[in-house]
Amino acid sequence: MRPQVPKYVTIKALLEARWERTMLPGDRLPSETELCATFSVSRATIQQALQLFEQEGVIRRDQGRGTFYVGPAQRTEQEPSQLLETTIRGRPGAEIRILRKSVGMPPAHIAMRLGLAREDRVVTLERLGLVEGAPLVFIYSYLPLETGMKIFEVEEHLKQMTLAALLNDVYGYRIASVRQTIAARLSDPSFAADLGIDVGVPVLEGERTYYAGDGAPVFCALSYYRGDRHSFTMSVKDWR
Amino acid sequence: MRPQVPKYVTIKALLEARWERTMLPGDRLPSETELCATFSVSRATIQQALQLFEQEGVIRRDQGRGTFYVGPAQRTEQEPSQLLETTIRGRPGAEIRILRKSVGMPPAHIAMRLGLAREDRVVTLERLGLVEGAPLVFIYSYLPLETGMKIFEVEEHLKQMTLAALLNDVYGYRIASVRQTIAARLSDPSFAADLGIDVGVPVLEGERTYYAGDGAPVFCALSYYRGDRHSFTMSVKDWR
Repeated sequence: MRPQVPKYVTIKALLEARWERTMLPGDRLPSETELCATFSVSRATIQQALQLFEQEGVIRRDQGRGTFYVGPAQRTEQEPSQLLETTIRGRPGAEIRILRKSVGMPPAHIAMRLGLAREDRVVTLERLGLVEGAPLVFIYSYLPLETGMKIFEVEEHLKQMTLAALLNDVYGYRIASVRQTIAARLSDPSFAADLGIDVGVPVLEGERTYYAGDGAPVFCALSYYRGDRHSFTMSVKDWR
Repeated sequence: MRPQVPKYVTIKALLEARWERTMLPGDRLPSETELCATFSVSRATIQQALQLFEQEGVIRRDQGRGTFYVGPAQRTEQEPSQLLETTIRGRPGAEIRILRKSVGMPPAHIAMRLGLAREDRVVTLERLGLVEGAPLVFIYSYLPLETGMKIFEVEEHLKQMTLAALLNDVYGYRIASVRQTIAARLSDPSFAADLGIDVGVPVLEGERTYYAGDGAPVFCALSYYRGDRHSFTMSVKDWR
C-alpha cells in the first residue's frame, strides 16, 4: 500500500499468474531454491512474497509436510462490451463510492478526447467500485465544466444510476455511442492505495469516451480494474 | 531482457502510462527530484529509467533547455472479438514465427480446459507474432496429443493460415465457438526475452478455448501481448 515498489511485489504478481496457470489447489509449491533461480532474486525476496501469499490464504504451510497451493482468489468477469456498473449491479456488497470531486485542468490525453484546450477546466470524479465489500475498480470520470457542474452536487443520484444514465435520462445528454480501449498497466501511486493494492502490480485499464449522436464527446472515463480480481470474458466471433 | 526484475523496469512502465495520459509531444518532463518523490525511489533508479526512455526515443534531452517528451510508441489495436492473426494479417512485416514445438504434460489449468487428466500429454506450440518486424505477441497453443500430432510437421501450413483455420479446413475439426478471457499480467521469464521486453512489465493475457459443435474443447491458446504495443478497442453496447 506504500508508494514504494519493492521487488517482492513484482515477484508475487509473477508467481500469482504462474500458479494460476500451472497449479491446482492442494499442489505442493516449488522449493524456495527453485523459485530464486527462476526469477534470479534472493531468498529474502521469495520469502517476503510467500509470507504475503500465506496472509492472503493463497498458500498454506503444513508443519513438516511442506507448503501447498490453496488456489487463486475468485475474479469477477465482464463482457467487455458492457459496463462494469451493469455487471456488478445486484452482486452482494456491490457499491460505487464517490471518493473525491474536483475542478481543474484535464490530463492532456483526456483534453484531446473531449475536444478541449489543455487549459480548459473539467470536473473530475474519482470513484471506487466494490464487490462483496472489496475494492475492484477505480474510476476517473472527466466531464467538460458545464456538464460537470450540473451533476456536481447530485451524489445521491449517482448511487442509483451510472453517470452515463444520469446524464442521458435526467440531464438530456443523448448518448449514442461509446468507444472503449482496454490496456494492461501497472498500478499507479495515484490510485493503488484506494484499490488496496501495491504500486506496480498489474491492472486492466479501460478508457471510455461517450459520444452524442452528432459525434461530439460527452465525457470520458478511465477505469483501473484490479488485475487479480477481474478479467474480461467474451465470445470470439471471427476465429479465423 | 535479463530474468532479473530491477526496480527501474517497474518505474519505467509506471512513467510510460502516466505520460501517455498526461503529456503531449513536446512537453517538458517533471524534474528528477519530483519523479523521485512521486515514486519514493532513488535518483539512480529514475536516471536508469530515463536513460532507457532516451534510447527508445520516448524522451529527448536538449542541451541547456531540458528534457522533453517525444511521445509514446504506436500501438496496434484489435477488436477483442476478433483474433490477432486476423487483425495483423496484411500489415507490414506481419508474421507468425514458430519458435518451439514440444510434447509434454499440460499446465494444470489447460488440462482442465481441455478436459484432460494432468498426466495426459499435449502438443505445445510456442509462436511469436511480429508486426513491422517487431515482436507483439507470444502465443502458447496446447493441443490434445492426437490432434497435435496431426499438425506437428506442417509448419508451412501454419505460415499461411491460423491454427484454428488449419484444424477446421484441413483436418475436419469443426470449430463452432471460441471463448476468450482477457487479463492483465506481468511478463514472465518464460516468454519475456522472446517478446523483447523485461520481466515484470505489463502484458495483456488472452486465453482462448476453441470448441466443436458438441461443446468438446478442440484446443487452447494463451497469448501474451506487449502492453506497450497493443490494446483492445471496441464499441460498448450496453452503456447503461
